[in-house]
Amino acid sequence: MQQTPLNYKSAGVDYAKIDPLKVLAQQAASSTAVNLAQHGLSEIQASRGESAYVLDVGDFYLASITECLGTKALVADAMRAITGKTYYAAIAQDTLAMAINDIITVGATPVSAHAYWAAGGDEWFADQERAADLVSGWKAACDACGVSWGGGETPSLSGVVVPGRIDLAASCVGLVRPKERLTLGAKLRPGDAIVLLASSGIHANGVSLARKLAERLPQGYATPLDDARLFGDALLDPTVLYSPVTEALFRHGIIPHYCANVTGHGWRKIMRHPDALTYRFASVPPVPPVLRFMQAQAHIDDREAYGSLNMGAGFALFLAPEQAGQAVEVARQLGIAAYQAGVVEAGPKRVIIEPLNVEFAQDELTLRA
Amino acid sequence: MQQTPLNYKSAGVDYAKIDPLKVLAQQAASSTAVNLAQHGLSEIQASRGESAYVLDVGDFYLASITECLGTKALVADAMRAITGKTYYAAIAQDTLAMAINDIITVGATPVSAHAYWAAGGDEWFADQERAADLVSGWKAACDACGVSWGGGETPSLSGVVVPGRIDLAASCVGLVRPKERLTLGAKLRPGDAIVLLASSGIHANGVSLARKLAERLPQGYATPLDDARLFGDALLDPTVLYSPVTEALFRHGIIPHYCANVTGHGWRKIMRHPDALTYRFASVPPVPPVLRFMQAQAHIDDREAYGSLNMGAGFALFLAPEQAGQAVEVARQLGIAAYQAGVVEAGPKRVIIEPLNVEFAQDELTLRA
Repeated sequence: MQQTPLNYKSAGVDYAKIDPLKVLAQQAASSTAVNLAQHGLSEIQASRGESAYVLDVGDFYLASITECLGTKALVADAMRAITGKTYYAAIAQDTLAMAINDIITVGATPVSAHAYWAAGGDEWFADQERAADLVSGWKAACDACGVSWGGGETPSLSGVVVPGRIDLAASCVGLVRPKERLTLGAKLRPGDAIVLLASSGIHANGVSLARKLAERLPQGYATPLDDARLFGDALLDPTVLYSPVTEALFRHGIIPHYCANVTGHGWRKIMRHPDALTYRFASVPPVPPVLRFMQAQAHIDDREAYGSLNMGAGFALFLAPEQAGQAVEVARQLGIAAYQAGVVEAGPKRVIIEPLNVEFAQDELTLRA
Repeated sequence: MQQTPLNYKSAGVDYAKIDPLKVLAQQAASSTAVNLAQHGLSEIQASRGESAYVLDVGDFYLASITECLGTKALVADAMRAITGKTYYAAIAQDTLAMAINDIITVGATPVSAHAYWAAGGDEWFADQERAADLVSGWKAACDACGVSWGGGETPSLSGVVVPGRIDLAASCVGLVRPKERLTLGAKLRPGDAIVLLASSGIHANGVSLARKLAERLPQGYATPLDDARLFGDALLDPTVLYSPVTEALFRHGIIPHYCANVTGHGWRKIMRHPDALTYRFASVPPVPPVLRFMQAQAHIDDREAYGSLNMGAGFALFLAPEQAGQAVEVARQLGIAAYQAGVVEAGPKRVIIEPLNVEFAQDELTLRA
């Protein structure tokens, strides 16, 4: 087995090649906002560059989003050959979580979702056990989040999607109601507390790295972790759905000043707010065994690990400090571990993780055109 | 060259394999509607099985949809090798049209859209000419329909999407406002006129058949049609965007009793309304040269052609008969040819195309669980 450290570029994701198109698309998209005037509507301009798009429709704000699962289903396909389980109920939850955990960052209550299941050929849908798991997992995730599953697409895309594979995505619509729930970060300020909500494992980001690692391991996905679970099995723990937490917070009178879904770019996402602010952490949450294993096996240091994986923190809430303790309690009552781990400070844009002596600077995260 | 007739099954789309999953998914989706009560919302139950999902949000109805392009981008990729053009501005319009032409069927004004562009690898996005065409075409289609492009996803899905290919989809949100614009077919009745809006060609349905046909032709996509255009070039005429017509109709005080977007299943889609009604056509619109060519080369009869392709009718409006003439005029003023071609009659569910002696019976279209 090689000892070369694995990073995102060697694992096949080259952000430098994607970003110029993203910038072009963001600029063109932004220029279409003027079309709303003919309908008597307007956009919330600050939502561009945030995780969901927000329109002002009068009595409330309307949020919408489309999100892709990524390549996690490839892990499920590989694990089925090992354990015989399909894992597609978990994969369904992962896919919906990509959309739901993003749309709640703007203060929206997710209300409806559409499924996008594009298979490499009709035979994908003929496997009834796997199809039934995908359906039941999708329904369960909708039920857990109070979402109505409105419909979707199940195309068979021979020649576009790889035979035997499926491209999974979810779109979601949410209402920000009352309008005071809109959280685009206008209230974020020095002194705010940062509460981190626990992840269940890798969620659906960092999967390219995990797949590359499995290729290097003699036992691949069947490699046992410290807790005796198989690597692939632990990778397939579904992404935590965080909308029950944000909805419960609102019922308790807590409106976060800002939220960040910790996905690609790991903890660098914590500084996604456009302002120059410093995010200082005095502690870090427990690292899920599967992420500890990945870091060790990929020979990457804390800086690389926290800069690309969630490392146990799936979602960050930025709150008035006097509400942080209650927010932790609300999450824990829902079975989601939460940690008052950091504070927002005046200062240059950066994330400082004190116990690990790791710092990410402003230029290490570029999300906006 | 073989002379065997080509049909959908031999062209690689087997609806029998997709449908059981669709039924399972529709039933599970429908069972999640109860989740809306906790938000003080409700669904419009009749929208399930229609082309877009509709929620009652108080002052207006909210419609949403996610739609896939299908495999038409493969034709663009093949034609680029022949002419050097990318065709991706047209492909972008096709993709948005799949969502927009569906969401308007329920009476919605499309207001925002998200892009889903999932490539087989980062190198797809590095081709700046093609990427710029995709972006400019997407923006132009949004502008043509008064839609704000809210954002989207540009994942790189190595191992899921075929290298060098891209899986394109669009999601769209629309408002039905005032609520009287909701057109789920409650008013459809015998005596209604059927106005057909012209298509530009194949649009994005029947592409598997076109691709299979190109494989059988000695010159492939470079085969000249009667009008000297190349087969592949004509296939890539972008789908007509019909929302300018439905919006103009409303401004003229015309609310259709029902609408059908003529996509997969061709003219069989005209009987998609759940009621038992007969749709009788005394005339058919001119057939675009590319569809005439396809029918002839694939050796399929009128029944097969009209049962799977749009054959010149991209969208059907079902209207009070006294409004049909004005509806035709409104469309023509927007540059879209329109034809008062048929009537709705009491009788068993079927589509009768008199000039062709073709009839489709109820059991030839199954859309609902």
